[in-house]
Amino acid sequence: MTISKRTIIYVSDGTGITAETLGHGLLAQFQGVEFRPLRFPFLDNEEKARDCLARINEVGQREGVRPIVIMTQTNPDLSAILHKADAFFIDLFDTFIAPLEQELDCKYTRAVGRSHGHANPDYNTRIAAMNFALAHDDGVSDADLKNADIILVGVSRSGKTPTSLYLSLQFSLKAANYPLIPEDFERDQLPSRLQPYRGKLFGLTIEPEQLHRIRHERRPNSKYSSLENCRYEVAAAERMMRREGIKWFDTTSKSIEELAVQLMQELNHER
Amino acid sequence: MTISKRTIIYVSDGTGITAETLGHGLLAQFQGVEFRPLRFPFLDNEEKARDCLARINEVGQREGVRPIVIMTQTNPDLSAILHKADAFFIDLFDTFIAPLEQELDCKYTRAVGRSHGHANPDYNTRIAAMNFALAHDDGVSDADLKNADIILVGVSRSGKTPTSLYLSLQFSLKAANYPLIPEDFERDQLPSRLQPYRGKLFGLTIEPEQLHRIRHERRPNSKYSSLENCRYEVAAAERMMRREGIKWFDTTSKSIEELAVQLMQELNHER
Repeated sequence: MTISKRTIIYVSDGTGITAETLGHGLLAQFQGVEFRPLRFPFLDNEEKARDCLARINEVGQREGVRPIVIMTQTNPDLSAILHKADAFFIDLFDTFIAPLEQELDCKYTRAVGRSHGHANPDYNTRIAAMNFALAHDDGVSDADLKNADIILVGVSRSGKTPTSLYLSLQFSLKAANYPLIPEDFERDQLPSRLQPYRGKLFGLTIEPEQLHRIRHERRPNSKYSSLENCRYEVAAAERMMRREGIKWFDTTSKSIEELAVQLMQELNHER
Repeated sequence: MTISKRTIIYVSDGTGITAETLGHGLLAQFQGVEFRPLRFPFLDNEEKARDCLARINEVGQREGVRPIVIMTQTNPDLSAILHKADAFFIDLFDTFIAPLEQELDCKYTRAVGRSHGHANPDYNTRIAAMNFALAHDDGVSDADLKNADIILVGVSRSGKTPTSLYLSLQFSLKAANYPLIPEDFERDQLPSRLQPYRGKLFGLTIEPEQLHRIRHERRPNSKYSSLENCRYEVAAAERMMRREGIKWFDTTSKSIEELAVQLMQELNHER
């Protein structure tokens, strides 16, 4: 099969993150095509719209096939300029806003991706969550664990840090994480500092072979990274979590987003 | 004006992040309506689809108005079950996949939000970027600055850390950040460690009044947080960045996403 190539042009009066997120989801369904992205964020005046129109047509002429434009543009005048291009349009506002107006019996108010700077309370909650995650990464501090929304436990390099940071930045959760280390397995007890917070504890685990590969990159040929030790630590951690009734998730073949959403679901069940 | 309330139901066979991102963008346009979200991620079998169908109808009956369902569901059988609900549907796959098939002359391959676990090279690049950002936060280490994709500078609490972490998690960029401190202003020189990396330096600044509020929360009634000192530091930092030809952005009323996308644009121009 020959792989065809197509240029995808993301246009937005905001960051374009919504358009691009949708684009990734849709285009991932077409594995026979290679996509090349071009981005036009913050397109918020007529001059930029005309420049973009020219670029779209230029790309189409050069490539001999019209580009695909994925667009979130709240300004109908700018939208009209862009629609003059010879392109295949996926226009999220055009497609959904008018039907939504009818369904909600409400005119839309054209709010360009609103700014959420320091003046916005959501922004401050989010930054506070991130600072909490940074301060409580890898068991660095247990001063404030009672204020955590969630505490992740697991062996070193099982994925606790990226998951905690993502939970804080994306969902404004105060996420702490705490390592389970060989000393804990020897004592065969959950670290005593965590005991009061059973309700917020969730575990991460990982296949020993994968853990071995990750640790080997960091510290080659060490006991820490040996397959034998990885097997021992993972088995011991899972045994401890099972005994303590801590629900855990295997990170081996999950994205950070998948883990984060699964944990959010668990928290909503708990609450 | 009376505010009406509507339930928004996000349904996906993946995380639902795409559906929710689009939902936020669309619904932000309707300020006269209060929206209550319900989430059904990982809906990947018939039983879950039937449960969800029942829930959608139940919500509609209870509230006396049909819910709005925003959906990314790649399985047409499950999609058909859900569409039996009495709801207003925004169905991203239904709406766009068939026209895209025609445009691309390619059948879609039904890839549920693919897993990007440790086995995926993109995952590893992303984690490496995040580890880099953590290791190079707030000037902690300058061992490896030559490998940074971008280095953010600015006064303490101007927004460097959240922006760096977001750039690493979202765009897999190796983002370092380095504080500009009173000693730098007294010497009136860019820290010498940064001198070799002019091409990767970008600045963040912030309105002194806002900086004062943020610092005051951390260290009330200190010289550090006084409005006078905040004014001095911000003016000195901007003067230095101007002289050194470092492009900077004001974070006062910008979201982390907006800053990150603007910086990405600058990097693409530079390269």
